[in-house]
Amino acid sequence: MQRKWKLDGTAVDMVPASLIVWKPLHMKSASRMLIASLHSLPTEEVMICGWVYRLRELARTTFIIVRDCSGEVQCVASSTAIQAVSLKLDEPVEIKGKVRPDTRAKAGFEVEVFEISVLNRVTQILPFNSSSNIAEIGIDTILNHRPLSLRNQSIGDIFKIQAAILDYFRFFLKERYFTEIFTSKIVSSGTEGGTNLFEIKYFERCAYLAQSPQFYKEYGVAGLERVFETGHVYRAEPHASSRHLTEYYSLDLEMGFIDSPQELIQLERELLNFIFERLNQDYGEILKRYREKLLPQMLNVPVWEFDECLRLLNQHFGRSDLVDDLDPEAERQLCQLAESETGIPALFVIGFPLIGRPFYTHPRGNGGAAQSFDLLFEGIELTTGGQRLHKREDLEQALRNRSIDPVSFETHLRMFELGMPTHGGLAIGLERLTARILHLANVRQATLYPRDRYRIAP
Amino acid sequence: MQRKWKLDGTAVDMVPASLIVWKPLHMKSASRMLIASLHSLPTEEVMICGWVYRLRELARTTFIIVRDCSGEVQCVASSTAIQAVSLKLDEPVEIKGKVRPDTRAKAGFEVEVFEISVLNRVTQILPFNSSSNIAEIGIDTILNHRPLSLRNQSIGDIFKIQAAILDYFRFFLKERYFTEIFTSKIVSSGTEGGTNLFEIKYFERCAYLAQSPQFYKEYGVAGLERVFETGHVYRAEPHASSRHLTEYYSLDLEMGFIDSPQELIQLERELLNFIFERLNQDYGEILKRYREKLLPQMLNVPVWEFDECLRLLNQHFGRSDLVDDLDPEAERQLCQLAESETGIPALFVIGFPLIGRPFYTHPRGNGGAAQSFDLLFEGIELTTGGQRLHKREDLEQALRNRSIDPVSFETHLRMFELGMPTHGGLAIGLERLTARILHLANVRQATLYPRDRYRIAP
Repeated sequence: MQRKWKLDGTAVDMVPASLIVWKPLHMKSASRMLIASLHSLPTEEVMICGWVYRLRELARTTFIIVRDCSGEVQCVASSTAIQAVSLKLDEPVEIKGKVRPDTRAKAGFEVEVFEISVLNRVTQILPFNSSSNIAEIGIDTILNHRPLSLRNQSIGDIFKIQAAILDYFRFFLKERYFTEIFTSKIVSSGTEGGTNLFEIKYFERCAYLAQSPQFYKEYGVAGLERVFETGHVYRAEPHASSRHLTEYYSLDLEMGFIDSPQELIQLERELLNFIFERLNQDYGEILKRYREKLLPQMLNVPVWEFDECLRLLNQHFGRSDLVDDLDPEAERQLCQLAESETGIPALFVIGFPLIGRPFYTHPRGNGGAAQSFDLLFEGIELTTGGQRLHKREDLEQALRNRSIDPVSFETHLRMFELGMPTHGGLAIGLERLTARILHLANVRQATLYPRDRYRIAP
Repeated sequence: MQRKWKLDGTAVDMVPASLIVWKPLHMKSASRMLIASLHSLPTEEVMICGWVYRLRELARTTFIIVRDCSGEVQCVASSTAIQAVSLKLDEPVEIKGKVRPDTRAKAGFEVEVFEISVLNRVTQILPFNSSSNIAEIGIDTILNHRPLSLRNQSIGDIFKIQAAILDYFRFFLKERYFTEIFTSKIVSSGTEGGTNLFEIKYFERCAYLAQSPQFYKEYGVAGLERVFETGHVYRAEPHASSRHLTEYYSLDLEMGFIDSPQELIQLERELLNFIFERLNQDYGEILKRYREKLLPQMLNVPVWEFDECLRLLNQHFGRSDLVDDLDPEAERQLCQLAESETGIPALFVIGFPLIGRPFYTHPRGNGGAAQSFDLLFEGIELTTGGQRLHKREDLEQALRNRSIDPVSFETHLRMFELGMPTHGGLAIGLERLTARILHLANVRQATLYPRDRYRIAP
C-alpha cells in the first residue's frame, strides 16, 4: 500500500500513504497527482487538480496559484491561453503540465501549464473568495455559502482544528480502556424530565430527540466500565444566543468505580492538557492566527467551592445577586480571578446546590450540595460533570423529591438492578470548546450547519 | 503522565498510560488498581474493583473471579466471610487484599481478600449472567438487559469490534487527506425527495431527520476536497426486517476530482482491506469465536457489470425475474458465484440502471446506466456509492426528469455554483458491516439500542 504510481505505470516505493493517488482501473491518461507529492517529480509531466486560489495576469504570462487538499502550487501559463478559457477565481480546474525548478517560486518549483480544463464554472457573483480576508463578512453570508467559505483557509482551519480536537479526545480515552459506543438519538422520554424536547412523529406514536446520551452511557458503564460517545444532542431552546444551539455535538464520557467527582476532575485536567499540548504541537502555526498565546497547561487548574466563588464574586465584584447557580458574567469574573491567582484562566467549581442539578446527581453528604462540578475556561462553562446515583432506591427518592412519579422511569430504573457500580462522567460541547480555543465570538462560527429557532437550512 | 502511584504515595515510572489510576485529590485510602496492572505488584496490598464473574465456594475457601475493564483475576476469600455478605454473581465489588504468586492460578498470581464491599446489590432475578452461554437467549431479553448483556463477553466483544472498525475507518481516511465533518441531522427536506422521512415538530414549523449526510458531504468536497462523516441517519421504513433499522450509523465519505466510480471502488478495496487486516491482527482471537475463517483479503474483489450479473443469475440459478435492481436472494447468489470464481465472497456491481438511483447520480454515457456501484459482501449489500452530478444544470434536468420542480431544491442547487468539482463517494452501514464481519444473523445484534417500528426503548 505504501506505493505511488508514476505516469509510466511503474511504482515508486516509500512515499507516505497519504500521497497515494488511486489509479483508475482502466486508466486512459495521466493519473492525477496531489500537489504535496509534486516536489518529488521535477521535470516530469503531471496532472493536478484543484481550485484557482490566486490569479495574476501579466502581458505574456499568467500566474495561477492552485490549491488542493494537500497544498498549493504556482502554475504558469500563457496569458493568451488563459484569456481563451476566461478563468475565474475559485473555479475547479484540471491542469496538465510539467514540474520545473524555479528559485523564485515559494516551493522551489512551479508547474508549466500545457493544458487547463475548467471542471465547473462559477456562475454566481461571489460575495468573497477563498483567498479573501473574510473578517468583515457576516455569519449568514458565510453559512449560506458554506462550500466556498470552507475553502477560505481562515474558516476551513476552524474545522480542521475541530476534527483534531475530537481525534485527540478519542485517542486519550481509548488509551485508558474507554470503549466508544453509539446510542440511539430517538428516545421515548427525556433524561431531565420532559422540558425542551423536540417531538418526532414516530409512526403511530410520539418519540423525542435525545437531549443527552446520559442514561445510555450509564448503562454502558454497567456493561463495559468505561465508555465514551461523541454525537449530536438536541435542546429545543427557544432563545437564540451566541452560545446556544438547538443541536450540538457532545463529547460524553462515563466511568465506573469512582467515589467522588475528584477523579473526574483529574481525568479532565489530563484530557484537556493532552488535547491542548497536541494542538500546540501539531497546529501551533494555525492557533497563532486565532489567539495571542498558545493553549495553557491544564494540569493545575484549581478547584474552588461554590460558596467560596460567591464570596469572591462579592468581594471583588460586589455581586450579591447569585444564589443557586452562576451566570455568564460570573463565569467570566471567576476565570479572571483564577487567572490572576494561578496564571491559568480556568477553574473547576464544586459543591453546587443539588437543587439546580439533574435528578440523577449524587449528593455530597446531607448539606444540600451536589457531587458535581463545572469547568469554566476562558470565561465560559465548558463542561458539566459529576458522580451519579447508582442505587435504584436513591434514584426513586430523588424523583419523588422532584414530584416525579418513579413509575414513569421504570424501564430506566430496572437497569440499576443489574450490577450498576458507583460511577460518574462529564460532557463537553465540541463547538463551544472549538470556539473557545480559537477565540471565536459566536459558537455558530464553529458549527458547519448551525441550528437555532430560526435556521434549519442549509 | 506515564506514571503510576503506589500505595505509599510514591510514583513509579514506565507504566503504560492505559494503566494509570487517577489519584483522588484528597485520597484517604488505598487507590484502586486496574486488574491488568496487578502483575507488577506481587506481595503488595492493593484495592481492586470489578464485577463477580464466577464464584466457586468450597468448605473453607471461596474463589471469586473478578473482572474489570482491563482483565480478570482470581480472588481467594474465606467462605465464612463470603457467606456473611451473601455475594451474588454480577455484583459490583471493591476488594482490598494482597497479590500473591500462585502457580495454580491462570495469571500466575491471585489476590488474597482482606475486605470485600458490595457496591450495589443485584436485585432482579437475572435471566442470564455475564458468564453464561447466551446462545439461546432471545434478542429482546438481551436488549432489555443491556447493561448485563454488554458485560457478557460474547456480546461486549461485538461492540468492541464495532468501535475498532470505526477507528480503522477514520485512521485510513485521515492518512489520505480526508477531514472529518459533523453536519446537521435536522433538515428542511429529504435528500431523496421526501419519502420515508421522520417529521420533527420544530418550534412553529416542520423539519425532518436526515436520511443521509449526502448533500452536506458534497458541500464539504467543494470546501475541503475530501471529507468523511460518521453518524446516525434515519429512515422511516415501516417494515421491520433482520437487516433494516429506522436509525443506523452511517460511515460516509466523499471526494473531489474523480472521473468515474473506479477510483471509489479502488479506495473501498484498500479501505476494507486495511480494516480487515487490522481486525485479523488485533482481534484475531475474538474473530475466531464468531466466524470460521479470518477476514478475507479485499484488494482483488472483482467488478461485475449489472447486465452480466443478470445473465449469470439466469444461467446458474434460472432467475428471470430481475429487471432494474437486485434482491436479497440475488445478492447471496452473486456472492456465491464470486467466491467460486475468485475465492473472495464479494463483488462490486457497476452499471446499474440509472432509473433506480437517486436524482444526483451521474449517468454513464447515454445508455441509461449509472456511474454508481454496490459492494456485495458475504451475501449482502454493504455499500452504495458512485459519482454524482456536479453541475447545476444537470441536477436541474435530473430533477425535472423525475417530475420534481427544481425550485424546491434552490438552496441546494445554489451550492453548485460556487466551484463544485467532479466528485463522488460512498456509504457503509456500521451495524450491517459489524454483523457481516461477525456472522450475526440480525443487524439488531450489532446495535446497542435498535430502533424499528415497534421499538423505541430502552
